[in-house]
Amino acid sequence: MTAPPDAALLELAAAAGARLAAAGETLVTAESCTGGWIAKACTDVPGSSRWFLGGFVAYADSVKCHSLGVGPDTIQRYGAVSEPVVRAMAEGALRVIDAATWAIAVSGVAGPDGGTADKPVGTVWLAWSWRQKDGSLRTETCREQFPGGRDDVRRWTVRLALERLLAE
Amino acid sequence: MTAPPDAALLELAAAAGARLAAAGETLVTAESCTGGWIAKACTDVPGSSRWFLGGFVAYADSVKCHSLGVGPDTIQRYGAVSEPVVRAMAEGALRVIDAATWAIAVSGVAGPDGGTADKPVGTVWLAWSWRQKDGSLRTETCREQFPGGRDDVRRWTVRLALERLLAE
Repeated sequence: MTAPPDAALLELAAAAGARLAAAGETLVTAESCTGGWIAKACTDVPGSSRWFLGGFVAYADSVKCHSLGVGPDTIQRYGAVSEPVVRAMAEGALRVIDAATWAIAVSGVAGPDGGTADKPVGTVWLAWSWRQKDGSLRTETCREQFPGGRDDVRRWTVRLALERLLAE
Repeated sequence: MTAPPDAALLELAAAAGARLAAAGETLVTAESCTGGWIAKACTDVPGSSRWFLGGFVAYADSVKCHSLGVGPDTIQRYGAVSEPVVRAMAEGALRVIDAATWAIAVSGVAGPDGGTADKPVGTVWLAWSWRQKDGSLRTETCREQFPGGRDDVRRWTVRLALERLLAE
């Protein structure tokens, strides 16, 4: 199974963006393992400023806490690659950038280092959060195990992040 | 003149990262027109968590102001693509992520829309800011006029951002 090429990511980003723009929705990102790649894919699309507001590359744990309001205790208890952390990242992004209606957050082990028995290389947690009509946030999360090396794991992550946004 | 391919950007990011790591320095990014691509290039490098802390994709002006402390009056007076704005973005990133010692900020007209007579497509302002021993920030900036379309302009911007970091 070949990881998605740049052209496939661009196509997905364009489709997700068209859907957001048509609905008057706007997106922010909160990325750890992809390190800005989701935002890069979104802004590859001409005219993306209509639906993409910006985001955070929260690579260091201190940035996850400081910029997105993730609790240091949450990271210590569950690890940076965990459901509570990506949930807090996505919801934190929507709280900080309060004009946005959608957030994507990802945190994973892209490798080559950092894998453990519980969370081997390729383990990624993703979260999609959106603002409901009453202002409250709703969030869905999933854990994936992607194949391949660092570049592959990051590509699969960008693809799923955008694909599921498109499906919501 | 062909815009730099991904492999060239990876090589530059790896070299810049090695230099930062050897000096015990750390980097943050504040990107508008490149939309996360500089951060993506940095985190393409295995082990980049030793020297790359994270960053901001400040695509919308509201994010530049809210997340990086750029003054709305500065944007109104000089425009988002201007020396005062990239300076404020770089210095703002170092103030917000106070563990970092270096920041890169970029804001430009990647096209295809948004060009004006004064700032045609390809106009990019870049800033490099670093924390001096006494804690004060020093910043250098430059304005470039890059050739080509959206993808080219963004590639040239990522390249110069990393190249000059390496040269400092």
